[in-house]
Amino acid sequence: MPVPVPDVVRAADAELVVTDLRRSRWFWVDVLGFVPIEEDDEVVYLRGYEEFLHHSLVLRQGARAGLRRLAYRVRTPQDVGRAADFFAAEGLPVQEVPAGATRGIGEAVRVEDPLGFPVEFFHAAERGPRLVQRYELRRGAEPSRIDHFNVMTPDVRAAHDFYARLGFSTSETIEDDENLYAAWMFRKPTVHDIAFTGGAGPRLHHIAFFVPESHHILRICDILGSLGEHPHIERGPGRHGVSNAFYLYLRDPDGHRLELYTSDYYTGDPDHETYRWDVHDPRRRDFWGHDVVSSWYREGSTALGLDGRPKPLVHPAASEETVHVGADGLGVVTEAQLRS
Amino acid sequence: MPVPVPDVVRAADAELVVTDLRRSRWFWVDVLGFVPIEEDDEVVYLRGYEEFLHHSLVLRQGARAGLRRLAYRVRTPQDVGRAADFFAAEGLPVQEVPAGATRGIGEAVRVEDPLGFPVEFFHAAERGPRLVQRYELRRGAEPSRIDHFNVMTPDVRAAHDFYARLGFSTSETIEDDENLYAAWMFRKPTVHDIAFTGGAGPRLHHIAFFVPESHHILRICDILGSLGEHPHIERGPGRHGVSNAFYLYLRDPDGHRLELYTSDYYTGDPDHETYRWDVHDPRRRDFWGHDVVSSWYREGSTALGLDGRPKPLVHPAASEETVHVGADGLGVVTEAQLRS
Amino acid sequence: MPVPVPDVVRAADAELVVTDLRRSRWFWVDVLGFVPIEEDDEVVYLRGYEEFLHHSLVLRQGARAGLRRLAYRVRTPQDVGRAADFFAAEGLPVQEVPAGATRGIGEAVRVEDPLGFPVEFFHAAERGPRLVQRYELRRGAEPSRIDHFNVMTPDVRAAHDFYARLGFSTSETIEDDENLYAAWMFRKPTVHDIAFTGGAGPRLHHIAFFVPESHHILRICDILGSLGEHPHIERGPGRHGVSNAFYLYLRDPDGHRLELYTSDYYTGDPDHETYRWDVHDPRRRDFWGHDVVSSWYREGSTALGLDGRPKPLVHPAASEETVHVGADGLGVVTEAQLRS
Amino acid sequence: MPVPVPDVVRAADAELVVTDLRRSRWFWVDVLGFVPIEEDDEVVYLRGYEEFLHHSLVLRQGARAGLRRLAYRVRTPQDVGRAADFFAAEGLPVQEVPAGATRGIGEAVRVEDPLGFPVEFFHAAERGPRLVQRYELRRGAEPSRIDHFNVMTPDVRAAHDFYARLGFSTSETIEDDENLYAAWMFRKPTVHDIAFTGGAGPRLHHIAFFVPESHHILRICDILGSLGEHPHIERGPGRHGVSNAFYLYLRDPDGHRLELYTSDYYTGDPDHETYRWDVHDPRRRDFWGHDVVSSWYREGSTALGLDGRPKPLVHPAASEETVHVGADGLGVVTEAQLRS
Repeated sequence: MPVPVPDVVRAADAELVVTDLRRSRWFWVDVLGFVPIEEDDEVVYLRGYEEFLHHSLVLRQGARAGLRRLAYRVRTPQDVGRAADFFAAEGLPVQEVPAGATRGIGEAVRVEDPLGFPVEFFHAAERGPRLVQRYELRRGAEPSRIDHFNVMTPDVRAAHDFYARLGFSTSETIEDDENLYAAWMFRKPTVHDIAFTGGAGPRLHHIAFFVPESHHILRICDILGSLGEHPHIERGPGRHGVSNAFYLYLRDPDGHRLELYTSDYYTGDPDHETYRWDVHDPRRRDFWGHDVVSSWYREGSTALGLDGRPKPLVHPAASEETVHVGADGLGVVTEAQLRS
Repeated sequence: MPVPVPDVVRAADAELVVTDLRRSRWFWVDVLGFVPIEEDDEVVYLRGYEEFLHHSLVLRQGARAGLRRLAYRVRTPQDVGRAADFFAAEGLPVQEVPAGATRGIGEAVRVEDPLGFPVEFFHAAERGPRLVQRYELRRGAEPSRIDHFNVMTPDVRAAHDFYARLGFSTSETIEDDENLYAAWMFRKPTVHDIAFTGGAGPRLHHIAFFVPESHHILRICDILGSLGEHPHIERGPGRHGVSNAFYLYLRDPDGHRLELYTSDYYTGDPDHETYRWDVHDPRRRDFWGHDVVSSWYREGSTALGLDGRPKPLVHPAASEETVHVGADGLGVVTEAQLRS
Repeated sequence: MPVPVPDVVRAADAELVVTDLRRSRWFWVDVLGFVPIEEDDEVVYLRGYEEFLHHSLVLRQGARAGLRRLAYRVRTPQDVGRAADFFAAEGLPVQEVPAGATRGIGEAVRVEDPLGFPVEFFHAAERGPRLVQRYELRRGAEPSRIDHFNVMTPDVRAAHDFYARLGFSTSETIEDDENLYAAWMFRKPTVHDIAFTGGAGPRLHHIAFFVPESHHILRICDILGSLGEHPHIERGPGRHGVSNAFYLYLRDPDGHRLELYTSDYYTGDPDHETYRWDVHDPRRRDFWGHDVVSSWYREGSTALGLDGRPKPLVHPAASEETVHVGADGLGVVTEAQLRS
Repeated sequence: MPVPVPDVVRAADAELVVTDLRRSRWFWVDVLGFVPIEEDDEVVYLRGYEEFLHHSLVLRQGARAGLRRLAYRVRTPQDVGRAADFFAAEGLPVQEVPAGATRGIGEAVRVEDPLGFPVEFFHAAERGPRLVQRYELRRGAEPSRIDHFNVMTPDVRAAHDFYARLGFSTSETIEDDENLYAAWMFRKPTVHDIAFTGGAGPRLHHIAFFVPESHHILRICDILGSLGEHPHIERGPGRHGVSNAFYLYLRDPDGHRLELYTSDYYTGDPDHETYRWDVHDPRRRDFWGHDVVSSWYREGSTALGLDGRPKPLVHPAASEETVHVGADGLGVVTEAQLRS
């Protein structure tokens, strides 16, 4: 008899270790406009303006930057146990996490997924104040809500197949006849809750937040330029081919990458079809055909194990280097290849 | 044992009878920018640019304008039968509709809901071409997708309670200590699939379509002004208090009302709380405090019965007239009251 | 020999008397986002983000609200004297104003124009800091710069003819075969530096400030709604027929009206033609055909004479009341007429 | 006695030779949305939606692509003669051009400026239809009006000094203690009518057109991506440091570069100060700090002499190559330098 699958609602929370909390708070709160709902010397809890739970992002002071946790909300309290059972049945590490271990979050389980990422499942959560129409508070990019995680992993096919078993559907892919280079998967009816980018992993590629309209993205670029903090802008703004998102990638003071984006589309019909991009279509990553900067393919945040220690990197199989797909991150790419 | 409830996915299709199809096509296609996916002398099937099914709106030539059908997609083929059973158990009229009765839509059931509206449930449907990134085709308001129906009914409480039994959740309401004046309910995780406006019914208040950004709404106003067709603009643009939508209400050549809007919010968490507006808050209907034009409260499209004949109107209970809530449409309101 | 005409560059500064400076500062600075460049207990000097002079608006504490000064910059120091001579030759009151009478402004002359308004001409002015690319400071509506004055006067034809002699060109009018109901006139190559609205005068109708894009106007409405200060929104947002501006009218705590707008057009070619609107075109005032609220036609700020005392009102000629133009403010209009 | 200087109003018209008129028309009209006001097999006359003259851009079929003419409007008929005299006194070639030589344009003079560009001055011109509020016609990027020319020349200082003598003011520069790398100059009160980019010349760098808002620029990128014509996008969208413009650079089918931009600022006060950028400020060319693609610095359209033959290129002085300014185009730059 198959192990029951937990009913995952959505990507809901993440925790980043930062090395200078004061500086990180400046970046996320003062510049980007996230709302600090609770904080002390060790940790800041952040929310967007259209979120209802206590927080959606935790910045925690530490000696070494890394990804401590990617958290999904599940539909019922029972689904927390189902998540524990599901991962245990896979022979993967599972920890029970008491309520309040993360402020505002109830009983949870923390696991290491087969890709090596620290993943948490929770149902119970405190609510935060309703800020949807507090326009007088909105600043910076006016982030609305956390939307999805994007992670780097050397075997995208394996990652995809595991998350499909966990009940995720696939909205889009980048592939060719032989390889799956990247995949976008969802539980809530948008393009993604989790996406996989081929590359040495486990590393966090980025956490993505929805913003209301494209002009909010232009504005945060202007603000960063005004402050002389434009080096935080890594890539964009632009239009993704995949997902149709109008995007911007920023790097925070520790190099953690975040995406601000708007306008993906509804995927909630039961027979929603996967849209498959050919890896040779120059519009897959940027619909306007712009080159992807190489750091975007090569750099990511260290994933921490359940013990808090950095996970060692696993590189993509050597055979794939010969594919020279470059732009999708699996090969040893040169600048010239990226530009060709 | 309770009758099983069909798993409704979302508001998915509607059919309007129009008296001059040529003129209606001009309005919906040439001006508003809907995509005519299939058509003949009697009927035009329309889609938005981010829809995947065959169509989401049908305009059908007839002698007398009216609402012929509000259709919901259900999750499985079995849910079509469950819908039939659910409504039959209520003692409501149920018709089986063979596949293809509406082009592109499979086997369905058509019922009359307790409010008197012709409602259809279907699962099987043909797909249309993917237009998400066909920006070169976008025109007018660039409608993305059908989002919700809003209907006028004399007893909002009864309507709310019935649809709650059918599995709909309530995102927002307008109420006071005694009355429920309006309610917004959803299946997909947005603010609404169906909304109820108090007033003589059954009448269709409007069908709403999502557009990408606020400037698309400003643009269609400018286009209508340029064409000298500004009388089609009934109300807005403005910001709703309820739902936070940036909205515009238009009347088509037969007076059928449609809403174009952008930016409501995610409601998909299992414990999403209802937000309750006081009927005396002047921002509930327009967050900027503008008066609602009286036609918006008073006029709606005739609902047709399953036999195709107009449903007689039932007026709100006399006792409610004394409440003089005016702005929420239940009383006999004067212009002065609307403005006070 | 004709008296030389001063070379007016543009509408550049205005001074409003307010009865509660603290509250006015809250409205203009904290809410709307104007930059307070200098202030004390009696006066606040304000700027937009794309201005280069010391300030463009002065709020001065007083016992009774009113318009103290509309100021134009002239091209050379000599043009200040030419302005004095021009008005003196008309037999109009002229005062020399020493440098610094208004902080940041050099030697000026203050006159009463034939309409009864207190008008100042200056050349020398201090510069303020360059804020064009200080995006990190921008708040509220992000006002860019003062653009024009709009004044109420009972005889628009006379007003137009006088300002034409002063070297202003006419971009647009509202008229019929017999009457000139409103006129828009310019020196800098945009649609207006001064506009005339028919009605009892001299009263200030509004001062207008340019903002960068339409979403900045939507945003200030949302902020006012959030604060429960939506009653400050009098009219709009909307598109003007005249000038093509995307507009919003607000009333400050003393009822002084301001316009925030974007997108008029270039008028600087030497043979730029006047565009004439028929007073019966419903799109002249609102291109989307919306009614103008009656307060917008009827209310204005008291003009102060050079002696600081309120100027008595002169009403339009009785004969014009019989022209039920209503919407252009000259007749005794009823709500019903405004709506017809 | 100094030779009188013609009173130049603005950059008003340009003429490009294209090698496949049909394909060029497709790009400028069908894709970008310019209005073809008149055309035959040899030539297409184009306008923006907020222009009043007959046209502002001429595309003419020819065997070899090039710039045939940059045209300025002058204030009076007499200024045409003054322009002839001014250039003749400089010993530069001057041709009288009869009315109608370019459709819609009256008597003109055509000269070769000291930089080697074919420049025309005209006053008399036919008007075209008023399209300002013909929103129903707007398509593509909805170009409003021609704004400025940008030309490549090996000696920016000399170019600047000559145009200063011709009455142009300088809004911004890029410089260091020794060199002037680029300069922006204006007659109408915006940031520029003409700009100089250091490099081998005479070549046209680009012709710039104003569009209403930033979303119009995003939209044309999306359209080009949809059509698979994204290689026409050379650089941007982005925010310029210089001029504060939100910009996009496109290359037409012959490689002629055009800029679509919005939001520069008012420069019309008589003492408007030049804003000087340090050549080492990475935000001067892109306020968000993005690299400039090398083609943007290196490529331009051949200037044709008054005899219609290509002007030979003059390269910047060798001494300047040692200044590794790279990004401002005067040195022999490597990709690595551009990226450093």
